[in-house]
Amino acid sequence: MGEASHDSKLDGMGPAGGNNKVYIGTFVHSRTREALELLHDTGVFVDAAGTIVAVEPDCHAAKARDVVCPRLGWDGAALEVEILTARPGQFFFPGFIDTHVHASQYPNVGIFGKSTLLDWLNTYTFPLESSLKQLDKARRVYTACVRRTLAHGTTTSAYYATIDVEATNLLADICLSLGQRAFVGRVCMDHAEMCPEYYRDESPEASLAATRSCIDHVRKVDPDYALISPIITPRFAPSCTSESMHALGALHRETGLPIQTHVSENESEVALVTRLFPDSSSYTGVYDDHGLLTPRTVLAHAVHLTEEEADLVAARGAKISHCPASNSALTSGAARVRWMWERGIDVGLGTDMSGGHSPSILEAARLATLVSRHVAMPLPDGPQRERAKLTADEALFLATRGGARVLGLEDRIGAFEVGMQWDAQLVGLGDVREGEDGRDGEDGGWGTGVLGGDAGNVDVFGWETWEERIAKWLFNGDDRNTKKVWVKGRLVHERR
Amino acid sequence: MGEASHDSKLDGMGPAGGNNKVYIGTFVHSRTREALELLHDTGVFVDAAGTIVAVEPDCHAAKARDVVCPRLGWDGAALEVEILTARPGQFFFPGFIDTHVHASQYPNVGIFGKSTLLDWLNTYTFPLESSLKQLDKARRVYTACVRRTLAHGTTTSAYYATIDVEATNLLADICLSLGQRAFVGRVCMDHAEMCPEYYRDESPEASLAATRSCIDHVRKVDPDYALISPIITPRFAPSCTSESMHALGALHRETGLPIQTHVSENESEVALVTRLFPDSSSYTGVYDDHGLLTPRTVLAHAVHLTEEEADLVAARGAKISHCPASNSALTSGAARVRWMWERGIDVGLGTDMSGGHSPSILEAARLATLVSRHVAMPLPDGPQRERAKLTADEALFLATRGGARVLGLEDRIGAFEVGMQWDAQLVGLGDVREGEDGRDGEDGGWGTGVLGGDAGNVDVFGWETWEERIAKWLFNGDDRNTKKVWVKGRLVHERR
Repeated sequence: MGEASHDSKLDGMGPAGGNNKVYIGTFVHSRTREALELLHDTGVFVDAAGTIVAVEPDCHAAKARDVVCPRLGWDGAALEVEILTARPGQFFFPGFIDTHVHASQYPNVGIFGKSTLLDWLNTYTFPLESSLKQLDKARRVYTACVRRTLAHGTTTSAYYATIDVEATNLLADICLSLGQRAFVGRVCMDHAEMCPEYYRDESPEASLAATRSCIDHVRKVDPDYALISPIITPRFAPSCTSESMHALGALHRETGLPIQTHVSENESEVALVTRLFPDSSSYTGVYDDHGLLTPRTVLAHAVHLTEEEADLVAARGAKISHCPASNSALTSGAARVRWMWERGIDVGLGTDMSGGHSPSILEAARLATLVSRHVAMPLPDGPQRERAKLTADEALFLATRGGARVLGLEDRIGAFEVGMQWDAQLVGLGDVREGEDGRDGEDGGWGTGVLGGDAGNVDVFGWETWEERIAKWLFNGDDRNTKKVWVKGRLVHERR
Repeated sequence: MGEASHDSKLDGMGPAGGNNKVYIGTFVHSRTREALELLHDTGVFVDAAGTIVAVEPDCHAAKARDVVCPRLGWDGAALEVEILTARPGQFFFPGFIDTHVHASQYPNVGIFGKSTLLDWLNTYTFPLESSLKQLDKARRVYTACVRRTLAHGTTTSAYYATIDVEATNLLADICLSLGQRAFVGRVCMDHAEMCPEYYRDESPEASLAATRSCIDHVRKVDPDYALISPIITPRFAPSCTSESMHALGALHRETGLPIQTHVSENESEVALVTRLFPDSSSYTGVYDDHGLLTPRTVLAHAVHLTEEEADLVAARGAKISHCPASNSALTSGAARVRWMWERGIDVGLGTDMSGGHSPSILEAARLATLVSRHVAMPLPDGPQRERAKLTADEALFLATRGGARVLGLEDRIGAFEVGMQWDAQLVGLGDVREGEDGRDGEDGGWGTGVLGGDAGNVDVFGWETWEERIAKWLFNGDDRNTKKVWVKGRLVHERR
């Protein structure tokens, strides 16, 4: 299982650039929100900059080498071409996009007791985040988080770091070094009553200055934001003063940088915002009143939005990150994805570690389908119930193209199209094979190696359709099925 | 990680019996429904029959050999003693108990589309189950299911097979051969209007005769039901005639064998039962009216039970198998575990493959905590909301001792106590280690090997309490963390 065959030399783990590459096999991506597209026997041609320059049907290695490469001008002696052909049953899938994740909370995954949002922050979250001002600790935590999420096929993450400038810059450096596309946000939180004394910005000015400092750092290490982008990150309305939110809104207008924050996660939080910002029409309205509700804004959760708030989000073109694991674990509620879609809002998925327990966007997609069924449950039978449920195809759209739209990257990532970048994963499933003599394999029908370390939990018996294999991957797949991961053409993870 | 050290020779995979054994390390099990107990530096002494004969605190290998073994009379030359000491950070945990699983549906895990119970049965389930009358296919499917669930630490399963006698007997044989403790039920379904013509028992008499045939088979291969027990299995009320249910009730009274069926999974199903059995007071009442509601009865789901039905279940001492994955996937509802407990009903967990997608009872426990929070969501804030939520400890109780009670095995399995049998798993978590020189390991703090094939997804940084490590295991653990599995003293699975 697992290893794809290489017609020429192996991809090396290493910096972007280098040779032109051809990937051959089955490609699966979202054609529309409703439907995956399966491209069999296809060649995807990726140039040295990591950009897809051709998608060729009916393509095998010989045709790639003898017909397509010459057409692309790739037959000069100076350019070496590497060809990777997926094994039968394997497929290429777009890299996953995590639109909401707190890298700084990674060590706390699974640890939340019976808490809900506001006590969870004080009990588990703020102490850990604060401790990452120790850079050695931050390095361990961030490296673990980035490597772990890469291993799960996450090629792009929108990260919250902490309030600490140096530690936030370290996260940007680690993403750049390990090759994960990332938005890296220094967390702004300056509300003296709402934030603990040991973990808050000293003033709106300090909050703004620290944010600028982190932007400067990214500009220095990745001047074109080719892989890493800063993101303006007011934690959430209750933790910010009106002054600091106005300043961050102005910073957005000045720089055009994206914004991320939380909205309407929990009913107590909504009540708190109403109390803290009596002049705003709603929780969403608070961000709008501070110039923070824009087409570049990513709002996490949005569980308890009113109709008016949804209309406001849609009117401003702001996006929503749906975080089903976290919303269930913290008893926040069941967010209504189709309801958001029907109001014209783009939605992606977030792991929301450590409110969410899992580093995997595949698990987020799985839980999105389950939570959508909990949304359906209180309603009477009929079309409305049917409508709330997300299909496997829709969940995988959320995990890829949906996330790309949320982060403003829909022209660059999320699918296999000419002009997009090669952010991709190679997926392989377990194969319950029969023996070569036509009888069942050893031990009565269980192929050798299926219980080996790396085959994972998806058992393919051979009679499944491709659609069923993909559903099996969605529901029982894990990082063992993600054999290789590339970002912008660079191989950034490989199972050995 | 992974390998525990052996003071003497390695355990061999093989039939039960052989040497006395001593297991040394940390043992974790449910002391009560509310609280796990952690026994550090403990020795558990297991005799050649697989029975725990001593649990010794402050025990290391030398003490085991020099003090405890002589006390047990294990120092004779004729008896060899093997000692297995868990590595630091590893722990022994009781084997998981799956109180509701359709082995015959295993190939369909993850495949359910947007269906709900009644259309799911006709679209996905009956065709697959029917096809297992081909014994070659049944062998592949059942072997895959038993090996896969063993690999996830499931030491006991309550299986539904199919209506086919030979295939059902084959499942019993496979469980016996691979060493999984199991209840194996031939599925009874003889209602001509409700079951498809291609997949039903011909008559109540045929249904009873086939059931007796399967009981005879188990009695032949495992005369004392030491590992395998038959279980009387009317599929669910809508698929059975009143005659066949009366006959199966009589069979229970004659044999004392346990019973398993489904109850109140889905609202349409409840309405159907009301229509089909107008003389019974309720869905639960149907079983009671046919002598099928007894202390040995396992009722799967029980999502929509009324107060009166819960009282009837409690009065009869019947048990409930909670199947959260399935209930979410099929939009059945969110079962109220604490509500059942408060009414005096014993509850265990079921994977309910393939209504449920996962072979893992650890995932069932994880989903039980999440679903319990969905139960809490519609309620106003306050103690009631708090009460519905299950803790990590409670979920792991459901997975072990709770399941043992449901299957009437509470004196034999589910914990580490003298007189119980050694049905256990050795659990190891990933370790994000620092380098030996005190600086972080290579790649900035990520210990070598953590992303290797078998370490799994639980990253332990070293500062976690034991309780937090266990919560991390519950939420991100998988079969990679289950290093070894024993049933009745026999090593039945080992990760290599």
